[in-house]
Amino acid sequence: MSLNTQVIYTKPPTGFPVVGETVKTSKSTIDLDAPLQKGDILLKNLVLSIDPYIRGCMRDPAIASYAPAFEYNSVLAGDTVAVVLKSDNPKFNQGDLVCGRTGLGYFEEYSHVKGTYADSNYVVRNDSKTNGLPLSYYVGILGMPGLTAYVGLNKYGRPQKGETLFVSAASGAVGQIVGQIGKTLGLYVVGSAGSDDKVEYLKELGFDGAFNYKTENIDSKLTELCPNGIDIYFDNVGGTMLEHALDHANNFGRIIGCGMISQYNTQDQYGIRNLIYVVSKRLSFDGFVVLDKENMAYEEEFIKTCTQWVLEGKVKYRETIVDGIENTPQAVLDVFKGRNFGKQIVNVANL
Amino acid sequence: MSLNTQVIYTKPPTGFPVVGETVKTSKSTIDLDAPLQKGDILLKNLVLSIDPYIRGCMRDPAIASYAPAFEYNSVLAGDTVAVVLKSDNPKFNQGDLVCGRTGLGYFEEYSHVKGTYADSNYVVRNDSKTNGLPLSYYVGILGMPGLTAYVGLNKYGRPQKGETLFVSAASGAVGQIVGQIGKTLGLYVVGSAGSDDKVEYLKELGFDGAFNYKTENIDSKLTELCPNGIDIYFDNVGGTMLEHALDHANNFGRIIGCGMISQYNTQDQYGIRNLIYVVSKRLSFDGFVVLDKENMAYEEEFIKTCTQWVLEGKVKYRETIVDGIENTPQAVLDVFKGRNFGKQIVNVANL
Ligand SMILES: NC(=O)c1ccc[n+]([C@@H]2O[C@H](COP(=O)([O-])OP(=O)(O)OC[C@H]3O[C@@H](n4cnc5c(N)ncnc54)[C@H](OP(=O)(O)O)[C@@H]3O)[C@@H](O)[C@H]2O)c1
Ligand SMILES: NC(=O)c1ccc[n+]([C@@H]2O[C@H](COP(=O)([O-])OP(=O)(O)OC[C@H]3O[C@@H](n4cnc5c(N)ncnc54)[C@H](OP(=O)(O)O)[C@@H]3O)[C@@H](O)[C@H]2O)c1
Repeated sequence: MSLNTQVIYTKPPTGFPVVGETVKTSKSTIDLDAPLQKGDILLKNLVLSIDPYIRGCMRDPAIASYAPAFEYNSVLAGDTVAVVLKSDNPKFNQGDLVCGRTGLGYFEEYSHVKGTYADSNYVVRNDSKTNGLPLSYYVGILGMPGLTAYVGLNKYGRPQKGETLFVSAASGAVGQIVGQIGKTLGLYVVGSAGSDDKVEYLKELGFDGAFNYKTENIDSKLTELCPNGIDIYFDNVGGTMLEHALDHANNFGRIIGCGMISQYNTQDQYGIRNLIYVVSKRLSFDGFVVLDKENMAYEEEFIKTCTQWVLEGKVKYRETIVDGIENTPQAVLDVFKGRNFGKQIVNVANL
Repeated sequence: MSLNTQVIYTKPPTGFPVVGETVKTSKSTIDLDAPLQKGDILLKNLVLSIDPYIRGCMRDPAIASYAPAFEYNSVLAGDTVAVVLKSDNPKFNQGDLVCGRTGLGYFEEYSHVKGTYADSNYVVRNDSKTNGLPLSYYVGILGMPGLTAYVGLNKYGRPQKGETLFVSAASGAVGQIVGQIGKTLGLYVVGSAGSDDKVEYLKELGFDGAFNYKTENIDSKLTELCPNGIDIYFDNVGGTMLEHALDHANNFGRIIGCGMISQYNTQDQYGIRNLIYVVSKRLSFDGFVVLDKENMAYEEEFIKTCTQWVLEGKVKYRETIVDGIENTPQAVLDVFKGRNFGKQIVNVANL
């Protein structure tokens, strides 16, 4: 029997997730030598991705939403990278690298995955064996956050060269890619982030403007840094920032509703008072969920394009990697506290 | 010299327009026998249209918006129907019926219109001489409000047979057409209005459901009347109703941002707290202004189609007509107080 530390979600928090209480780790055991049933696979998990949408899954299961609610006292799930230790499934070979996708990979050291579950939720992704890119990229820049940036900006932003793009949570998993794709498209790119070193990083990435929304006056900064107004706002945070972006939006502007992280950990939702601009400025405000089939359809195209960008050094990617599965609950909280700098990753084990 | 009563806008109100103060009538004179300069026309105004957007023009001219601010102490303008008394302009003949369009017809008994202004803002519309439809229809069902309903629903609503359409201010100039077009498209149509007789009227028009938002619990009524949720919300009012509609919106729903009349006469804008649904339900929320060229391009197609509907009795149109230009200021206020039942018209004179 081997030790198998698991990340457990117990019940919905009222505000922020509570480390050790609503999300905690728990030690269990697993028999790595037990025979597999037909179709099953045995995985050693290497990388866990901490993504903000999981807060939305930590809810009363009676409330419907795009992603199913987590079951109380279950192993937390999310995107993962793992290596196949054993397989009785023709789709998977021992030694294959696989990704647990669409938020359904298990957060534990080892996973004995049933055949039908493996078939639907895990894919082989051996690319990094040859291209030398970090495994973590497959849940970050080349994974769900990257695809979110790509689809969100291109499909819902309808970007035109020379336009001004503003992105919030700009140094984050999604935001930093949004801005860099914006630059490749010839946009004028401005970002906001929650610390001075994040702002510095955005400038290094080639953003035309960046500011710390916690210490600066947002309205003045948008006036200064977006002198031609905002044509596209990629909204990761909602709340007051959305209100400011509406104030500065140009006629026929596009608001891309990607996320509203400022509202995830509070019951007291902020009220947006200037939606009249949606009418008077003829804005389009489109929400999207990358997991929808029509968006996942871009996955292969995106991975190919973006791998090329990364290998050519055209697009950079910052991550915060914590070592050890026991640090996962804290990493979950960190993302909502802005303590991550770039994509938040938990490194569970090395290959 | 003839008496020429004019409607005068003096200055921006802080809340509702103040009858006799911020909008008033004033007696002036005009020489109907004076020779015209080349290109000029002399009009006798017959019908004035009272449209809610004029509240937005009653603002500090320093604030930019889609429609220019009214000049202080000037003759109010809006859509009108008039008859040409005299013309020195090849586009207009004596006896022609003309429409003052895109909100630029003068609100007065007689108008001496300069050639270039006439060329840009008045069009000949003699149709009612032969089809027998009321002149007022050309600023209502066949005019700007009609086109607004048609373009808004079709272009931004992307309606699919069987879907549920909810429309607010549903008995109004725009709303009653939205609902009836919705029925011709095979939608399940529900409307809200501010009095029981308005609700009764909606049922007569064939709405599948209707309720008085002032006396009923909006949330319960939407649950009851839209059992399959809302696929398309045609928003005429903003504020709390928009929030309720977002609560009841289906995944991939469309919110058509037509107007937010509940917010026009207050500084204290209502804050919408559930925009997270735009993301999680993947809504599209599109604002539009019918006066934009791309929308006005549908005008002739619309007038043709809708005239046919009206003549065949497929679409009905309720109006509130007040007689006498001196009642215009009150009619302006009435529209914001919900005292109009259907399209608000001022009848200035008969043909
Ligand atoms: N629609 C979709 O399919 C989809 C897919 C992926 C992600 N998303 C959304 O995209 C957004 C970004 O996700 P991500 O994975 O890229 O996360 P991330 O940016 O890497 O991490 C979250 C960041 O949000 C910022 N933040 C946290 N609390 C905030 C608050 N109260 N106000 C403002 N900013 C706050 C923090 O950065 P600062 O230090 O800059 O404050 C934090 O680092 C989230 O809203 C997420 O839900 C949506
Ligand atoms: N985007 C465009 O291009 C465009 C073009 C035309 C019109 N519009 C907009 O469309 C909307 C309807 O215009 P319309 O010409 O058809 O006007 P209308 O409905 O004929 O008249 C306005 C009606 O709005 C309702 N109302 C007034 N104050 C309200 C409040 N505080 N809360 C809720 N409802 C209120 C009243 O009806 P109840 O008795 O039912 O409350 C009133 O009768 C307006 O918002 C207007 O600005 C937009």
